[in-house]
Amino acid sequence: MKVLVINAGSSSLKYQLMDPESREVLAKGLCERIGIDGRLTHKIPAKDAKYEFEIPMPTHAEAIQAVLDALLSSEHGVIKSASEIDAVGHRVVHGGEKFACSVRIDDAVMAALEECIPLAPLHNPANITGIKACEKVMPGVPMVGVFDTAFHQTMPPKSYIYALPYEYYEKDKVRRYGFHGTSHRYVSARAAEMLGKPIEELKIITCHLGNGSSVAAVDCGKSVDTSMGFTPLAGLPMGTRSGDLDAGILEYLMGQYGYDMKEMMTVLNKKSGVLGISGVSSDFRDVENAANDGNQRAALALETFQYNVKKLIGAYAAAMGGVDVIVFTAGVGENDAITRYNAASGLEFMGVKMDAEANKVRGKEKVISAPDSKVKVLLIPTDEELMIAMDTAAIVKG
Amino acid sequence: MKVLVINAGSSSLKYQLMDPESREVLAKGLCERIGIDGRLTHKIPAKDAKYEFEIPMPTHAEAIQAVLDALLSSEHGVIKSASEIDAVGHRVVHGGEKFACSVRIDDAVMAALEECIPLAPLHNPANITGIKACEKVMPGVPMVGVFDTAFHQTMPPKSYIYALPYEYYEKDKVRRYGFHGTSHRYVSARAAEMLGKPIEELKIITCHLGNGSSVAAVDCGKSVDTSMGFTPLAGLPMGTRSGDLDAGILEYLMGQYGYDMKEMMTVLNKKSGVLGISGVSSDFRDVENAANDGNQRAALALETFQYNVKKLIGAYAAAMGGVDVIVFTAGVGENDAITRYNAASGLEFMGVKMDAEANKVRGKEKVISAPDSKVKVLLIPTDEELMIAMDTAAIVKG
Repeated sequence: MKVLVINAGSSSLKYQLMDPESREVLAKGLCERIGIDGRLTHKIPAKDAKYEFEIPMPTHAEAIQAVLDALLSSEHGVIKSASEIDAVGHRVVHGGEKFACSVRIDDAVMAALEECIPLAPLHNPANITGIKACEKVMPGVPMVGVFDTAFHQTMPPKSYIYALPYEYYEKDKVRRYGFHGTSHRYVSARAAEMLGKPIEELKIITCHLGNGSSVAAVDCGKSVDTSMGFTPLAGLPMGTRSGDLDAGILEYLMGQYGYDMKEMMTVLNKKSGVLGISGVSSDFRDVENAANDGNQRAALALETFQYNVKKLIGAYAAAMGGVDVIVFTAGVGENDAITRYNAASGLEFMGVKMDAEANKVRGKEKVISAPDSKVKVLLIPTDEELMIAMDTAAIVKG
Repeated sequence: MKVLVINAGSSSLKYQLMDPESREVLAKGLCERIGIDGRLTHKIPAKDAKYEFEIPMPTHAEAIQAVLDALLSSEHGVIKSASEIDAVGHRVVHGGEKFACSVRIDDAVMAALEECIPLAPLHNPANITGIKACEKVMPGVPMVGVFDTAFHQTMPPKSYIYALPYEYYEKDKVRRYGFHGTSHRYVSARAAEMLGKPIEELKIITCHLGNGSSVAAVDCGKSVDTSMGFTPLAGLPMGTRSGDLDAGILEYLMGQYGYDMKEMMTVLNKKSGVLGISGVSSDFRDVENAANDGNQRAALALETFQYNVKKLIGAYAAAMGGVDVIVFTAGVGENDAITRYNAASGLEFMGVKMDAEANKVRGKEKVISAPDSKVKVLLIPTDEELMIAMDTAAIVKG
């Protein structure tokens, strides 16, 4: 079975054609500058080949058509007929409270996605546009929506309710949703597989640390808490995002600088986080290089990030009454040994003992805690596309 | 030695005349409606006597004079001459980064307090007014300022820096300050005394839970982190305050309801927290009664509060690399056994074992963990006035 995985942004579109059973990625790539001019980067992993094309993409439909043409091309294609694509799996950012798992896309689902737009005004319209473009270019191919929020729908009310007037929840759907759900679900499931234990018997803390970061508490395979909130601005400091804040700061800064809320939000979303503290970059590698060169603000940015991850690990262990497994994943979590070490060391009191040597590793599945650590600490590269493809295959097969 | 402790608000003023050595409270009371009309409630604990007077108080100076008259009265007084008051200790809310401990008030200190007004625009002006009123009515009596923020000035940068553009810290002093410092300091010191251990050897988590609530991590007697932030709105949900938030919620609600920032802040400060979730009251006793009567939102409000305290206990244990003592104090912490139990139970993985029977107690010092609990859990009634009087005496004596 071949599944085309689509992650549509407002002016970009990522794709992977993969076989969810063999887990082989046949081709993958990226359409950029949709609506401006159009560029396609197409890769065939098996051949280690990369192709770049300038292709006019006035809308997402032309982008999907370009992807299809690339997949079918006699020169750099991987399939002979469009009918080889058995299904399309779409990443959708926000499923609100309507979707607690992946679903086959039909008219009712499309209507529900439209309803969720106010909750994700930047992301959901792009996802919907991607779905409609696929319907146009590949009519009749079954499609599945896989939601970033779905995995966290198992959170209990004490985790998702904000201490705000309750009407904002009832009328306006203001609550913690959490994001990166597909990643948290994938790595928590893989952790159970790696340890050879049923996930129903494990308390897992998953640390998805990248340019956007979130931590989740996964008890018996179910998300019971997570650090992102109503929006992906919440929780940890990130590359450019502030994370949770004292709202009094907003009032103060808006008074000091005459910002309106939109300007304030731009600061919090684009100029804060590790970039804001360090003044160097949102890219952890740049910030680490600067810290190594003696830049104290860069060092503080990293230390603050690591410290906040550590506090969340403690908080979620308390929330679950203990922890059996801690997982690090995503760009920073997979590649940055120092961040992993600093976030998970000094936790011997709760049974966590890191292995500094074992932790010297990048981007592959590995146990990075000491052999006698009661809590297993794992590095697991995330694979949201595989998860989407697997969900899509399972749903299409029924 | 007799110290008059003053806590001046914008239209009210609390006082206690006490002997910091014997810890005896000779008299205490409250001036209300200053600037409106004026009412004095005066109590003499030794006689279990309470007196109420209507006294014109156009300014804080008349209020202080009324206090002095009451203390000196032949009928309900406790001293014969104003010269028996050796010193005055003032509670001051915000000392910014200038004050890491209590100080004798002089012109330079007054100037520094004025500089801190932008950080506490509601509280510091009232505190300053109280100091000036005392200077006028009791000239020459030595005065000491005791700051809510001072104890937390030992926090390391990773705890106090926000993930915002660093300029906001450098230029605008935006950082975590923390509050309730006098209470956290008092109960952490008492905890060490109760356990007969040097505070330098203890990792203590102090939970000041009242209408305003904060948790602090006290390592070796020093505050290393706390949940209130730049303002007292931050951290835990409280009686009417939201605690930390996803700023995306503010943008969303301001868009939905057309609130300006001032209206939004009123919601977050006055209509949120336990009141907001429950819709019942900001008073935990009312909310508990409602929950006992089957009100599910009331139950959720309490559960959410307790859950957030528990997560902070886990977070601060992780921050310190363990915990030896957990202290509950303030109105809710001292009187609400259920909140204490739910916040500190289920933490056996980190050595905390509550004793449900021992925990059935209100308002007195007691060990409420099980005899075999590695981490001691204590109930300690706070006494900020005593701490202020002790600081004042120590500084005046030199």
